[in-house]
Amino acid sequence: MELVYLDNAATTKVCPEAAKKALEMMTEYYGNPSSLHSLGVQAEQMVGVARRQVAKLMGCDPENLVFTSGGTEANNLAIFGAVEARRRDGKHIVTTAVEHSSVAASCKELERRGYEVTRLVPDSDGTITPGQVAEACREDTVLVTMMYVNNENGARFPIDRIISAVRRAAPRALIHCDAVQAVGKLPLSAVKMDIDLMTASAHKIHGPKGCGVLYIKKGVRILPRLFGGEHEGGMRAGTEAVSLIAAFGAAADAVPHLDRQQSLYLSLRKRLSDGLADIKDVVWLSPETAVPYIVNISVPGIKSETMLHFLAQRGVYVSSGSACSKGKRSPVLTALGLPERVIDSALRISFTHTNTPDDVDRFLEALKEGASTLMRR
Amino acid sequence: MELVYLDNAATTKVCPEAAKKALEMMTEYYGNPSSLHSLGVQAEQMVGVARRQVAKLMGCDPENLVFTSGGTEANNLAIFGAVEARRRDGKHIVTTAVEHSSVAASCKELERRGYEVTRLVPDSDGTITPGQVAEACREDTVLVTMMYVNNENGARFPIDRIISAVRRAAPRALIHCDAVQAVGKLPLSAVKMDIDLMTASAHKIHGPKGCGVLYIKKGVRILPRLFGGEHEGGMRAGTEAVSLIAAFGAAADAVPHLDRQQSLYLSLRKRLSDGLADIKDVVWLSPETAVPYIVNISVPGIKSETMLHFLAQRGVYVSSGSACSKGKRSPVLTALGLPERVIDSALRISFTHTNTPDDVDRFLEALKEGASTLMRR
Repeated sequence: MELVYLDNAATTKVCPEAAKKALEMMTEYYGNPSSLHSLGVQAEQMVGVARRQVAKLMGCDPENLVFTSGGTEANNLAIFGAVEARRRDGKHIVTTAVEHSSVAASCKELERRGYEVTRLVPDSDGTITPGQVAEACREDTVLVTMMYVNNENGARFPIDRIISAVRRAAPRALIHCDAVQAVGKLPLSAVKMDIDLMTASAHKIHGPKGCGVLYIKKGVRILPRLFGGEHEGGMRAGTEAVSLIAAFGAAADAVPHLDRQQSLYLSLRKRLSDGLADIKDVVWLSPETAVPYIVNISVPGIKSETMLHFLAQRGVYVSSGSACSKGKRSPVLTALGLPERVIDSALRISFTHTNTPDDVDRFLEALKEGASTLMRR
Repeated sequence: MELVYLDNAATTKVCPEAAKKALEMMTEYYGNPSSLHSLGVQAEQMVGVARRQVAKLMGCDPENLVFTSGGTEANNLAIFGAVEARRRDGKHIVTTAVEHSSVAASCKELERRGYEVTRLVPDSDGTITPGQVAEACREDTVLVTMMYVNNENGARFPIDRIISAVRRAAPRALIHCDAVQAVGKLPLSAVKMDIDLMTASAHKIHGPKGCGVLYIKKGVRILPRLFGGEHEGGMRAGTEAVSLIAAFGAAADAVPHLDRQQSLYLSLRKRLSDGLADIKDVVWLSPETAVPYIVNISVPGIKSETMLHFLAQRGVYVSSGSACSKGKRSPVLTALGLPERVIDSALRISFTHTNTPDDVDRFLEALKEGASTLMRR
């Protein structure tokens, strides 16, 4: 039985182009990019190719990208690096109550170190308005860090208008965007957005786990977090994970046309929504503003984990929320003020471009069976 | 023409076992280890297998290992994590003047933040004595960080006796050892050594670049450096680089018998030393105490880089020193008090278990040609 993988916001299967490239780096181009001989130079060149491929996807210049060990490290580097560089300007941070754990935990750590953090809560439409952000900005705001697309319910924040609002309200603040769930799915350009810092991750776009990237706008100075050799322009010490970086580039290069992806996700979501109408008691949690490739629903009365295992036994893979909060009650859905009963039964369905209408049907079928079987217990 | 790779202290070729495992993780076990469904559990189990394989090589329990993005991150985590956990006990650090850049730069950063750092210089035998270390320890010493084997000249420090000396002289200090150039080559056991923190790296033992590990002794508390999900027992947030970790495990498992390796290196070094006796003006820089698999020599009058390229054109790869200091004058050889003329012509030859007597002969032949050709210019 073919497996139905609808947990693409947690991680994706590495695409053949990326896997092939990673293997090639391990077996052929195995030099250390810092070595002066030709084997080293070759490896360095392959990293350069990947940098250009990822830059193209993010709409920026290759030299403004710093490869990291993943989205979490990139978010940590952006947040700590920014506030440390701006420590003379103030100690106030604006963020949201629904960030990924790597942003939320970094802000919490900074709070412990004496920073003040304002956490904006999305309105009933699931969004955060530019006005809300501007109002939260203060004289001493040094960082605004907000995601582009929420990893649990797919809510899409109006990041372009938020950036303009922040530039007016807090001209000295640096603006960071965790765009991990947007890059490779939505058309975007770091340069056109005029953002200071932006995070992306390889394993959300069919690259391997363990590789991410931080875009740092030209002229923006943040402080490094890892000390050692002069890798990544002095911004990130440590021998480059060349196989993962090259694979990230290959995956970026293989991202299918964004419009075509969008139409596919819209049709899959429509099919899902139509099918769910036939299943009693299902609650649709994602807001109107959400992207079509991340959908959050709930079957109140059946715990997420119970349903998850029921589905997995039938070869259907979804998640209960963010993979990174592993089994804990979702802080994101909690921040949105949903009842516990709904949160504890939440299921996230997340699409990628290889998903098909049949995947949705298989999910619906299994969910229907689960809803009736498990509810009776 | 088969390539002669004698730059194994910079990085090694990924072994077939490791490359195969990495590929398998990318294409089959692609779940997120934090996902609750079976695909996630599978990935988590593979990480568990790797943890046991690496633990066996390092002589410790698997649960005391934290996987990182490499030796640099592990060294940073050990050093910053230790001093932050012990910040109430003092602000003094003991290290050596010949550490890898990731340790040296971390100590320098701490100096900038108000710490006092004592840097021990090896004696004329190239070693650092337990007495020297004990003497440097003070009431307020919170960390002693020293490498096991020097990456540039192969000097081997008497780490076991140093640990005992530090336990007596500074009972409250944490002891960290960067064992990147020792693990997989020398018999060692973190538990038997009674060390607090120890670093190893995958790509020095035929694993991939971008993966390292920090051993943290049971009961020793250090503070994390990356904030986010509860990965690696809360010590290191971020989705695990599963392909690299699994490959690290496979590489650890494939490490050949250490005694057999040692005999091979001794015979290769003997052959090298005998051969070099025939080449005029060559200076042997590695100390008596050095391990046999890292040899530093110098052909004064011919700049390292010039010779390096000459050799590379003949398919022979060595290095000028540490890959991580890329072209800069070696701070290690400088700290050892060698004349500039000797340092600027230094060459490092580093063996692995796949090297052969023929590799040494090819190197000698090319070096001889280089010495006579380049000297005349």
